Amino acid sequence: MSAITPSRRVRPTPFTPGVEAAGVSRYTVYNHMLLASVYESVEADCAHLKKHVQVWDVSCERQVSIKGPDALRLMKLMSPRDIDRMAADQCYYVPIVDQHGGMLNDPVALRLDDDHFWLSLADSDTLQWALGLAVALGLDVTIDEPDVFPLAVQGPKAEELMARFFGDIVRDIRFFRHKRVVFEGHDFVVSRSGWSKQGGFEIFVDDSALAMPLWDALLAKGQDLQVRAGCPNSIERIESGLLSYGLDMRRENTPYECGLGKFCNSPEPFIGHEALAREAAVGPRRRVRPLSIDGEIGPCTGVWPLYAGDARVGQVASAVWSPDFATNVAIGMIDRGYDDTGTALRIETEHGVRTATVQETFWN
Amino acid sequence: MSAITPSRRVRPTPFTPGVEAAGVSRYTVYNHMLLASVYESVEADCAHLKKHVQVWDVSCERQVSIKGPDALRLMKLMSPRDIDRMAADQCYYVPIVDQHGGMLNDPVALRLDDDHFWLSLADSDTLQWALGLAVALGLDVTIDEPDVFPLAVQGPKAEELMARFFGDIVRDIRFFRHKRVVFEGHDFVVSRSGWSKQGGFEIFVDDSALAMPLWDALLAKGQDLQVRAGCPNSIERIESGLLSYGLDMRRENTPYECGLGKFCNSPEPFIGHEALAREAAVGPRRRVRPLSIDGEIGPCTGVWPLYAGDARVGQVASAVWSPDFATNVAIGMIDRGYDDTGTALRIETEHGVRTATVQETFWN
Repeated sequence: MSAITPSRRVRPTPFTPGVEAAGVSRYTVYNHMLLASVYESVEADCAHLKKHVQVWDVSCERQVSIKGPDALRLMKLMSPRDIDRMAADQCYYVPIVDQHGGMLNDPVALRLDDDHFWLSLADSDTLQWALGLAVALGLDVTIDEPDVFPLAVQGPKAEELMARFFGDIVRDIRFFRHKRVVFEGHDFVVSRSGWSKQGGFEIFVDDSALAMPLWDALLAKGQDLQVRAGCPNSIERIESGLLSYGLDMRRENTPYECGLGKFCNSPEPFIGHEALAREAAVGPRRRVRPLSIDGEIGPCTGVWPLYAGDARVGQVASAVWSPDFATNVAIGMIDRGYDDTGTALRIETEHGVRTATVQETFWN
Repeated sequence: MSAITPSRRVRPTPFTPGVEAAGVSRYTVYNHMLLASVYESVEADCAHLKKHVQVWDVSCERQVSIKGPDALRLMKLMSPRDIDRMAADQCYYVPIVDQHGGMLNDPVALRLDDDHFWLSLADSDTLQWALGLAVALGLDVTIDEPDVFPLAVQGPKAEELMARFFGDIVRDIRFFRHKRVVFEGHDFVVSRSGWSKQGGFEIFVDDSALAMPLWDALLAKGQDLQVRAGCPNSIERIESGLLSYGLDMRRENTPYECGLGKFCNSPEPFIGHEALAREAAVGPRRRVRPLSIDGEIGPCTGVWPLYAGDARVGQVASAVWSPDFATNVAIGMIDRGYDDTGTALRIETEHGVRTATVQETFWN
């Protein structure tokens, strides 16, 4: 596949000079922005992530800022989760759905103040959804995309590196909570979160002039921890069952299909609540399930259909070889009746027909 | 810049096998889809486009389908243009704006029926804007993204190639009008439109199984016309003053700033009409203007600021060397007072400071 040309439309980030200097070998595009997808190799990157600590440029997690007297009202309309329970230092993973319960995005919401939220977006312009609702309903909120460039620090040694840098205050940040910490006199929101199951933090860099100094300093402070530049890793995230919006789920899927039913607990009406309540009563007609695929598979560059006999019963859009588990790990969306653990299905890859077997749980 | 990995999230199109076989050398990503940006070289591609005919995979022009009893009402809310005047075979270039008149997208709208429109999108998920409005207002419309993959035929010999293929019926399609034509028993919407000023058509391919047969047949039928695969060309489109959403304009810009005031003629209230009426009365505070830049410039991978003395008075995000006009051609957004023809401004490129001079008109 050919090279990509950066532009204002597919834009570099304040960390791109560091990413380039660290030897990125592949990019993807996410929310109109460059996102590294491979440095050394997907396998070497994964092994390092599981043992040490990595610094990730995830500027592409664009923030939708919702601020004003009606911010809470809009959040409650958009969220199947009970936002009233959300503390002022909390992060909530929130499926955002349409009137039929179809997924439009799955951001992490940060509550910054009583009347101020950020949605840290997956790959779709959900600012336009929030804005459409707010304008049509005449809500008193300001919705925009501030210049915030998240930097993730991920891996088992992430806490050690962060504590050296920001002090022990970061050790007190609980999972999916955030605090403000100081670097070079500037106040940053730091949360214990990130798109791996190896533990770590996200630093919400809202001053692009401090981006490269922060990047360089983190890498310098962690040399004995073997810190290096990294990025969301497809092996680690599939082993962990972390879904990717646009790949594993889309608007045609509901939170229940995605295994996100536990996040649909709002006691008040939200957009899509009737559809989701109906679905909850009878169960989803298909579900995300872990699959192990036999034999050699190449890169999954599209959708691989799953068959039981002649019937198409699902699909896979994320699959990769896992050296640690010595199998191809995959995320499937599988019709009810074919989704039980142990079920063997036929899968059509670009490299031939293989057998995919439903697993009990994800691997990490 | 490194290579890009295709996936379901940054997806190939039904024409990608043809694009690859034709020797694409660079891609960009547009509406979550691959879009070729260079074949032989930007200059060679441009010279060929101006002389012959090219077939472009522009599947990334995703269609937002708006259908139902309230489709016209929603279109009128979203459109500064007078949609009532739009004939059933017409295409309208429509700036889509928020409540402050800020650009959210600039699609070409196709009217397919009294109650059915397509918006052929620029690079943002404006489906979510339309959906937010419709859901909040309880409108009776269905909004989705159908499997339609536009194929453009562009260049001075486009009509000849299209007529050989579909018959003389295509010669009767007027500019920004569409008709249904038949290929292999299938009915396609074909419009006289496209993202160049060299003339041409767009075929809205709504059966992906016919995509590669159509691609191959067009290339085969036009061998003596020197047809080849092509793509939107940055030299040709800057010379022509064709704006790119995300590059030359964004939500912080209004249609008046973009020179699109003539498309703000709806006699009925639409979203943003008050803001735009206020702006129309006093004139925009900055404007899109053609600029010529002296000296050598490299690729424009971000935003180049424009200065008059110490004051920042605008910016450029599209600039390239034009062999035909023997100058660097650029699209600027320039503050009022500095936008007159002949004004010389300082521009900071990645390759040094240059002089940019405001031109009377674009070049094509």
